[in-house]
Amino acid sequence: MGDFFGKEYRSNMEKDLANQEQLISRVVEKVMEQLKYYDRFKIPIGVSNRHVHVSREDLDVLYGKGYELTKKSDLGQPGQFAAEETVTVRGPKGEFKGVRILGPIRPESQVEISLADGFKLGVRAPITESGHLDGTPGLTLIGPKGTVEMPQGTIVALRHIHMTPADAERMGVKDKDIVDVETFGEREGVLGNVLVRVSDKFALEMHVDMDEANACSLKNKDYVVIAKR
Amino acid sequence: MGDFFGKEYRSNMEKDLANQEQLISRVVEKVMEQLKYYDRFKIPIGVSNRHVHVSREDLDVLYGKGYELTKKSDLGQPGQFAAEETVTVRGPKGEFKGVRILGPIRPESQVEISLADGFKLGVRAPITESGHLDGTPGLTLIGPKGTVEMPQGTIVALRHIHMTPADAERMGVKDKDIVDVETFGEREGVLGNVLVRVSDKFALEMHVDMDEANACSLKNKDYVVIAKR
Repeated sequence: MGDFFGKEYRSNMEKDLANQEQLISRVVEKVMEQLKYYDRFKIPIGVSNRHVHVSREDLDVLYGKGYELTKKSDLGQPGQFAAEETVTVRGPKGEFKGVRILGPIRPESQVEISLADGFKLGVRAPITESGHLDGTPGLTLIGPKGTVEMPQGTIVALRHIHMTPADAERMGVKDKDIVDVETFGEREGVLGNVLVRVSDKFALEMHVDMDEANACSLKNKDYVVIAKR
Repeated sequence: MGDFFGKEYRSNMEKDLANQEQLISRVVEKVMEQLKYYDRFKIPIGVSNRHVHVSREDLDVLYGKGYELTKKSDLGQPGQFAAEETVTVRGPKGEFKGVRILGPIRPESQVEISLADGFKLGVRAPITESGHLDGTPGLTLIGPKGTVEMPQGTIVALRHIHMTPADAERMGVKDKDIVDVETFGEREGVLGNVLVRVSDKFALEMHVDMDEANACSLKNKDYVVIAKR
């Protein structure tokens, strides 16, 4: 282009380019920082549909004395599995057939439902931690060999994150902390009151129920992050 | 107590009290500010269960030529009502009986469901605005007098806020803004991607579906606020 552009113009253009390059590398730096932040705090989602944990005694009634659960598939938490076996769960107002049993067996039977399920069954189950069953409503479990009237054990699982001590250290949280979790996508938002559970027997995973998964448009393996509100 | 406490001690105590009073009035001030903030931005919730809007032509088929809907109860938005009339909504994988028709009639029939309902019916309805029906899946509506095969019209309503121009001005938002909304209580959090609709025909109300209501443990008349994230 010869000297069509004057010296001053070219000098300014070079300065502009240098400024632009600086700006771009600052933006890239910021984006990388944010990605690293997300990487450090990101947690895969596990969506829990309604399911049942059974005691030895109740499995004896539902499927026969000494019956052993058959593994259908592994779950996100080590040693936990979805069984081939299902039961009908019946409440005062409705029932669900084919509700999956999760293994292994537990000291006490427990039915985990969503709030929507509770309306259909006709039970007001508290939103609480797994195993906190005192005062919770009962339900009827119907298996191929018999029926169990659970005196208690129906809960809506408090949304929670399983993690290892190494995860907890990396994320700066500890067992029983209550945190906020940021979700992404079409129905992005923040889930508050999320319980952190830390154990070397856990794998990193946040459990939400079907109501929560649908409200946030989340599916298994989607990522969320612990949020600072 | 006579001079049991020395002069210096009492002087310090008085200073402490004065400081404490100052602190308390600052806290009260902050709390009042926050309450005023919430008051300015607070919005009552309206929970939408699955429902149907029908066209004149479709109502003719479902309930008979020239049939008029009977008002069962007013809804939050002026002129809108829940009708006594219901239909069965059937999809490729399942159906819901007794799905309420909302009046008045509209130019085109529309079925509003939750994502959970979509799984049960076997349709993948988009999360979108009311009336945006091009390319949405159809469903079968079954009334006492006849059956309608809807060619399209099934949506999951995009969560949205109805408000008057005065509400919009007070909250500093405008028609078609996308905002975040803070929710409170046991399942507190933030719902992102909330559409603002402004019209002098509206009343202030945020509409969520059953998945969202249950995930946030919200019921009709609960309050939420437009949030700054």
